Amino acid sequence: MSKPRLLLVNAFQLSPNAGYGLRPATGTREALVMDYANVARHLEDVEWDAHPGALATHGDHPVEMREEFLIVAANRIRVVREACATGKYDAIVLLGGGDPGYLESVEIGRRFGVAVTSCAHAQMHMATMLGQYFGIIDISETHNAQMANLVVQYRFTEHCTGIRNIDFPLPRPANAGRPKISDERACALRGEPSAMLDAAFAAAEAAIEEDGAESLILGCSAAFWMRPFLEERLRAAGWDVPVLEGFACAIEMAKLLLRMRLTASGLAFPMDPPRRSRRRKRV
Amino acid sequence: MSKPRLLLVNAFQLSPNAGYGLRPATGTREALVMDYANVARHLEDVEWDAHPGALATHGDHPVEMREEFLIVAANRIRVVREACATGKYDAIVLLGGGDPGYLESVEIGRRFGVAVTSCAHAQMHMATMLGQYFGIIDISETHNAQMANLVVQYRFTEHCTGIRNIDFPLPRPANAGRPKISDERACALRGEPSAMLDAAFAAAEAAIEEDGAESLILGCSAAFWMRPFLEERLRAAGWDVPVLEGFACAIEMAKLLLRMRLTASGLAFPMDPPRRSRRRKRV
Amino acid sequence: MSKPRLLLVNAFQLSPNAGYGLRPATGTREALVMDYANVARHLEDVEWDAHPGALATHGDHPVEMREEFLIVAANRIRVVREACATGKYDAIVLLGGGDPGYLESVEIGRRFGVAVTSCAHAQMHMATMLGQYFGIIDISETHNAQMANLVVQYRFTEHCTGIRNIDFPLPRPANAGRPKISDERACALRGEPSAMLDAAFAAAEAAIEEDGAESLILGCSAAFWMRPFLEERLRAAGWDVPVLEGFACAIEMAKLLLRMRLTASGLAFPMDPPRRSRRRKRV
Amino acid sequence: MSKPRLLLVNAFQLSPNAGYGLRPATGTREALVMDYANVARHLEDVEWDAHPGALATHGDHPVEMREEFLIVAANRIRVVREACATGKYDAIVLLGGGDPGYLESVEIGRRFGVAVTSCAHAQMHMATMLGQYFGIIDISETHNAQMANLVVQYRFTEHCTGIRNIDFPLPRPANAGRPKISDERACALRGEPSAMLDAAFAAAEAAIEEDGAESLILGCSAAFWMRPFLEERLRAAGWDVPVLEGFACAIEMAKLLLRMRLTASGLAFPMDPPRRSRRRKRV
Amino acid sequence: MSKPRLLLVNAFQLSPNAGYGLRPATGTREALVMDYANVARHLEDVEWDAHPGALATHGDHPVEMREEFLIVAANRIRVVREACATGKYDAIVLLGGGDPGYLESVEIGRRFGVAVTSCAHAQMHMATMLGQYFGIIDISETHNAQMANLVVQYRFTEHCTGIRNIDFPLPRPANAGRPKISDERACALRGEPSAMLDAAFAAAEAAIEEDGAESLILGCSAAFWMRPFLEERLRAAGWDVPVLEGFACAIEMAKLLLRMRLTASGLAFPMDPPRRSRRRKRV
Amino acid sequence: MSKPRLLLVNAFQLSPNAGYGLRPATGTREALVMDYANVARHLEDVEWDAHPGALATHGDHPVEMREEFLIVAANRIRVVREACATGKYDAIVLLGGGDPGYLESVEIGRRFGVAVTSCAHAQMHMATMLGQYFGIIDISETHNAQMANLVVQYRFTEHCTGIRNIDFPLPRPANAGRPKISDERACALRGEPSAMLDAAFAAAEAAIEEDGAESLILGCSAAFWMRPFLEERLRAAGWDVPVLEGFACAIEMAKLLLRMRLTASGLAFPMDPPRRSRRRKRV
Repeated sequence: MSKPRLLLVNAFQLSPNAGYGLRPATGTREALVMDYANVARHLEDVEWDAHPGALATHGDHPVEMREEFLIVAANRIRVVREACATGKYDAIVLLGGGDPGYLESVEIGRRFGVAVTSCAHAQMHMATMLGQYFGIIDISETHNAQMANLVVQYRFTEHCTGIRNIDFPLPRPANAGRPKISDERACALRGEPSAMLDAAFAAAEAAIEEDGAESLILGCSAAFWMRPFLEERLRAAGWDVPVLEGFACAIEMAKLLLRMRLTASGLAFPMDPPRRSRRRKRV
Repeated sequence: MSKPRLLLVNAFQLSPNAGYGLRPATGTREALVMDYANVARHLEDVEWDAHPGALATHGDHPVEMREEFLIVAANRIRVVREACATGKYDAIVLLGGGDPGYLESVEIGRRFGVAVTSCAHAQMHMATMLGQYFGIIDISETHNAQMANLVVQYRFTEHCTGIRNIDFPLPRPANAGRPKISDERACALRGEPSAMLDAAFAAAEAAIEEDGAESLILGCSAAFWMRPFLEERLRAAGWDVPVLEGFACAIEMAKLLLRMRLTASGLAFPMDPPRRSRRRKRV
Repeated sequence: MSKPRLLLVNAFQLSPNAGYGLRPATGTREALVMDYANVARHLEDVEWDAHPGALATHGDHPVEMREEFLIVAANRIRVVREACATGKYDAIVLLGGGDPGYLESVEIGRRFGVAVTSCAHAQMHMATMLGQYFGIIDISETHNAQMANLVVQYRFTEHCTGIRNIDFPLPRPANAGRPKISDERACALRGEPSAMLDAAFAAAEAAIEEDGAESLILGCSAAFWMRPFLEERLRAAGWDVPVLEGFACAIEMAKLLLRMRLTASGLAFPMDPPRRSRRRKRV
Repeated sequence: MSKPRLLLVNAFQLSPNAGYGLRPATGTREALVMDYANVARHLEDVEWDAHPGALATHGDHPVEMREEFLIVAANRIRVVREACATGKYDAIVLLGGGDPGYLESVEIGRRFGVAVTSCAHAQMHMATMLGQYFGIIDISETHNAQMANLVVQYRFTEHCTGIRNIDFPLPRPANAGRPKISDERACALRGEPSAMLDAAFAAAEAAIEEDGAESLILGCSAAFWMRPFLEERLRAAGWDVPVLEGFACAIEMAKLLLRMRLTASGLAFPMDPPRRSRRRKRV
Repeated sequence: MSKPRLLLVNAFQLSPNAGYGLRPATGTREALVMDYANVARHLEDVEWDAHPGALATHGDHPVEMREEFLIVAANRIRVVREACATGKYDAIVLLGGGDPGYLESVEIGRRFGVAVTSCAHAQMHMATMLGQYFGIIDISETHNAQMANLVVQYRFTEHCTGIRNIDFPLPRPANAGRPKISDERACALRGEPSAMLDAAFAAAEAAIEEDGAESLILGCSAAFWMRPFLEERLRAAGWDVPVLEGFACAIEMAKLLLRMRLTASGLAFPMDPPRRSRRRKRV
Repeated sequence: MSKPRLLLVNAFQLSPNAGYGLRPATGTREALVMDYANVARHLEDVEWDAHPGALATHGDHPVEMREEFLIVAANRIRVVREACATGKYDAIVLLGGGDPGYLESVEIGRRFGVAVTSCAHAQMHMATMLGQYFGIIDISETHNAQMANLVVQYRFTEHCTGIRNIDFPLPRPANAGRPKISDERACALRGEPSAMLDAAFAAAEAAIEEDGAESLILGCSAAFWMRPFLEERLRAAGWDVPVLEGFACAIEMAKLLLRMRLTASGLAFPMDPPRRSRRRKRV
């Protein structure tokens, strides 16, 4: 079997001077994948490319609100459709928490025989393979709302023990003056204390002890960098608990679907027009 | 109390020559409300205006696919935001089945103190006031998928008995050659037989007898014209069952919210930034 | 449309010397509606009358026990049946928490084409329009049991985050020596501190932060007076959360049903005999 | 252990000339227990008496409507309270389908240390001991509504596969001209064909094959006589399925509770006043 | 009716020198029933014998791990099959928490017309007769996993408020150095303080106040001795809550089934081959 | 990354003269994998070996009864433990439907850092990645009972639309005289009609049209050979539906876990003793 060809698509592309600080809008494919080092090994056995994301039209800053996620989603599916149409890819991996445009991209991908995966969706499926209950560690009240939407839409409400909010919101105008996540990451990478990581550890322990979580999912891609740090600190505290970030999950789920030669069910994501119609759809 | 001011916003606006046949893109406010006669009485005690919808960018035809719904949604929330910003409206009523952009519009509306309602959402709430179980009568396999999404997202899965598909798809390129819904409506209005209405009646009886529905919801706004015909035929067959179309439900729910001086919970739809953050969000 | 005609029916009528202290057994229609000032605006656009409730036969004191609720319910449905039979009312609004006799009254009302609404039922429906999760703030362990019954019977178990008990029981022989709710209300109205209000505030914060409530319902009508005070204190504490009392909800839901020309589904509340029988009822 | 002392309480007492035909209003204790022969063996090891039920005030005919069940319930709990107060009984068994007044009677019984059981409640518990899914075979559309209420209130919705309606309503004015159940029973007892039994058999097979029932519950006490006939016919057809009527289940559940020295949880059925209050009640 | 004949079967039999300290491997039937005094009265009206359990092959110590439970289960069903084949018993009662081999034993028993009951299964059924929510008080993290399995398999997830872990693991090599349960029991029986009992009391209060439990189930048979102590302490603290151990529940449920002349549904536990096959099994 | 090392373990090993006809007890590793050709490509990128399964002690024939599955499970976990202890494998793949010993094997594997997967478990996870609802196509009433157990234990009840029974039981003494599955397979492989395949096609269509399945799972490994035939026939009939057999799913899920460097959550499958205990386990 020749190597599968993956396209990793970021959620959106800010202007170079947006000052987001977590990933560049341009550069090598590796540079376009935030915290690339953490997922490099998952890309070793595939051919892959990365797309910086459609140019942001919701503002020049990261997204947290439903309104912003919707705008980003509509922009991203154009990228997905065009990438599918090139015939160059076997699968598309949507990077970023919140999964903007994921279900629509699956629908588009099916028409082209291209599998599509996304972070939160892949994380939730992976988590329930490891135990029945997962908790979500997420960054802000508003971003929590989007994660909650996904839990419901993907139908994991019986498995999700709740969303623990560490209150480190994204660098957006509304959050001016709040600590910057990029600074927190830099501290942690230098081996210095990070208040964000401390908050995540406390949230993780609450998820385990109070909520009953058996594995943990990081909600926002701006928090994915914490995975190795958080898992390690939890292990040191005696907790034998998997912590899942989204990029590896989405990449590996794409590879799994390709090996299985599956995209999605044609009854869940019908063609246009559908090959055959049913009299009744179950909900 | 002065009369509440409502803006009714269509889902999208096609070009005049799109040949959709169910509603015009321009004209009086009454002309912009499909099947206006059926809902006229619900607008008598309010001040209202109608918006034709943002110009369609997904194609020049009605929407059925997830991809199309997303594009329409992203376009519509701009209309909603601008309408809110004018300060001219107390509530916005989103017309059309499938509810594109509804939850995002509620979020936007809250920032302005404007209530927002939408058809399927209002229909499902109204239906469960009347009995525990509702069935959805809908037009096509692909449109069913969108309705199913809404049932899940609005968390009515325990109350929805399924989506009965009458297979009268919308006039879209993919459905070329299929019977036109506008012709079916015209037949019914002339008192002539309509195969679409016959199919809806059969689907309704199946929903009642096989699925256990206690009330019926019409899924797509292109099917809302059937409400009086269908309810009457069901009554003649002995079924004492309410049939709900979306416009009246969404208009009346908007009026209800205004009288209650409510928009939505600030904990479900937080401000940006949120007034106060919680440590944990329940899902 | 001529103004709808509503009859507001209290849960029961105590003797003048019962010393309940929250509402009189006789007087003007306004006097018969507890905390009338809070709901006056909801009655401005209707014709209405108030019924003091059937004379209490369970004892001369408010109700908290299942046994008492049942006796009160059986007495009240006679009032409902007689009121329906007069042909003078389009809708009947059952006042009081605990909803004694509500479902039976809906059944009776349907035979006469009269809509019937009740406090807890309307509150729960209204609450879920605003967000997915509501918490109930209620007065006593025994009253909580009745509220829990209603949550189950109305099938809101997935939406109710629990019943927070502030332990200010009703003035009943079994509760002799406990603080009087009427005194608490008087304090609050005078702008003085009220231990009951303090307890409700603490319960509300617990419902929000620990239970995940997105809106709050007051359980017992003897606690409805707290609505404006509680909502205001919560807002001052940063919580952007709706607090719902029952009278406004039940009145507005009655008006909604009338405008929709609906009472209830004939398949959920069949006629006697039913117009048509099904082979199977879904549960 | 001395023999437990049981009081069997009928749902209501009609006048001698009501023409119900299924059980007399007066006579020996055995005569007061409908189809006594079917349950005699369950009463051999207890001391017992039977109460004819409170005199009916809803009309002089059996009950099917919610309104009637409520009136009967309020009347019956007086009988229960008085019987408890005599100190003569260890347990009270409420006879009759639909369980009017059951939960209230449990509350009353607890105050006296008296266990209370009822037919549908006991049947549902017994059924789920034998398999996960039970179907209900019931007599009429209106009676079905009451049975559905019980399934919800007792929280067996995940276990009940639906209510199959055989459409043999009770002898009530609204059902004038319909076949009499007493005639059907007489036919069956004589070994002659009974249309009611045929309908029950067809309903039972549908419950097994279409709904997935693993055991069957007869809904109305007027249908309890069918138990041996129905089970036998099902066995002859190859179905190895238990059929449960309510009297034996309620009697045996009462004996079980007595042997366990249990009535009900004081946290589900608190005393008046409660011995101790909780801050939160789960729903 | 002649007395029913019961066989009580222990989960496994250790060697005499295993040092388990809670029950002997040999002796009179009474000696084989751990804490016999607590259940003696439940055995007064039956003929009964006790089996020491199959010789342990998982190791010479009690079981806590899934692996151990499975080995014990496979050994025990041989005992059950042989006991059934003797024709000497009407029912078999499986002693011990964790219910190893229970569902398989029910299947075996049905072939012989022998009813089979087990502790946790009977406790959960009994608990839900008394209230809707039960909490489990259990001894260790690993044993909790088995109890959780049972809650899921018996489908009580909506009724179980969680498993409270008192962390007094069984005397197994992995738990060397931990306090011995047999010592704790001895202390309590002598009227001295027991840290295990204290932990159980704290867990019980947490289950009641934080989790919403309305009755309590002891998980492991090594904790069953606490029932009278724990219930008494809870009552002294004002909690009116039933505490259920497994032996009495399983014995009484066996007697109940025998009186009802039932074993289990043939559709849930089909014969080999099944008497009749269905086209579809509900899950 | 060096190639992962997998051990495929059959459910049990019959004697050479058992006449099962579907797979040999000895031979090359390829011969030990039933229908090897269908899964060969999934094993190309791993090192692997196959184990014939522990020698059967339940009888010399395939398993369908709960009793048989339990015996097989207890035998198989010895094989798993020994294989783990060799240190030669990174993952163990349990072959065969019904998943005997799966959860116990995961527990064992974790102690050694070895991932364990099994057919039905992997199929259900894979199916819900493709759509929300899966139907199970299975071979016999008794085998259905085991599959139902798995759906419950793995907590997929909300996603499983039911188990369709094609009634082609395994070659066991109880099923003497029934058509042989090996003959059916041989027919199909020769391109001749197979009644079993016809039955599976009919069951699949019923699962799609009546039950709402969006993907299909084959239940018993003796039916896995039908996957390509069934999917092709469904596609020819217009159904765009994935059909999943277990071997590929379990193999690929093992590879996925290895790439993710995960086995299972230590909170769901604790060590012995657990690294750290919680006070409460969620169920």
